[in-house]
Amino acid sequence: MNSYTYDEIVIGQTEQFCVTVTEDMQDAFRKITGDLNPLHGDAAFAKRNGHGGPVVFGMLTMSFLSTLAGMYLPGKNSLIQGVSGKLRKPVYIGDTLTVEGVVSDKSDAVHVIGIKYSITNQDGVKVAKGEMQIGVENYE
Amino acid sequence: MNSYTYDEIVIGQTEQFCVTVTEDMQDAFRKITGDLNPLHGDAAFAKRNGHGGPVVFGMLTMSFLSTLAGMYLPGKNSLIQGVSGKLRKPVYIGDTLTVEGVVSDKSDAVHVIGIKYSITNQDGVKVAKGEMQIGVENYE
Repeated sequence: MNSYTYDEIVIGQTEQFCVTVTEDMQDAFRKITGDLNPLHGDAAFAKRNGHGGPVVFGMLTMSFLSTLAGMYLPGKNSLIQGVSGKLRKPVYIGDTLTVEGVVSDKSDAVHVIGIKYSITNQDGVKVAKGEMQIGVENYE
Repeated sequence: MNSYTYDEIVIGQTEQFCVTVTEDMQDAFRKITGDLNPLHGDAAFAKRNGHGGPVVFGMLTMSFLSTLAGMYLPGKNSLIQGVSGKLRKPVYIGDTLTVEGVVSDKSDAVHVIGIKYSITNQDGVKVAKGEMQIGVENYE
């Protein structure tokens, strides 16, 4: 886990990691949220409607932004204040996602950093992109 | 699970549900994401830094937007295309959240609805708010 302080972070700084979405993750996310939508769990329904298999919950894909902020950028001193994003293409179970964030902005008065992120699958398709605002705290 | 069609949805339409955040949810979310940030799991760390206990992952709070879209508004025909939001106040384990969405916009050409959502705790404190863009599909 990184633990950058506000002063150590520079505009343009980039962090990334990879994660493979498993059926266990999909099941655990369904259990947390109670979202029983068949697009995400019923393979026949998903295939009938133009997908290769159950579609990964969009908000599960977005969940890896927690990891990006809390483990990488800034890591330990993170407090997410805002998130926005577009889900552009479907993600399927077994896809390996590269989650990348670039520091685009620093607000010195409030110690908030802006990050532009992208989430890309193993075929180089950008499945999501957007921005986050993250407070960089002085945790003791 | 609701299954509104695009034509059935009207601007101003509102759906809401309540959910209590449990330690099991927090643990499951940590396992999915690999976000080991101590703010969310180390009670002593959280208390030393001004919180009553471990702070619920912000992206876990946001995860209930999956439920809002996929179960309620529009329900079965949902495909989330975009999400934005501000996390305004901390959520703690045991908090009961009211997740509410109001249809604010309809884009007839692409069958996308805009929703303004708010997430409020048991004390009436708005912990998150923002907007979603949701495709309303014609699933078979």
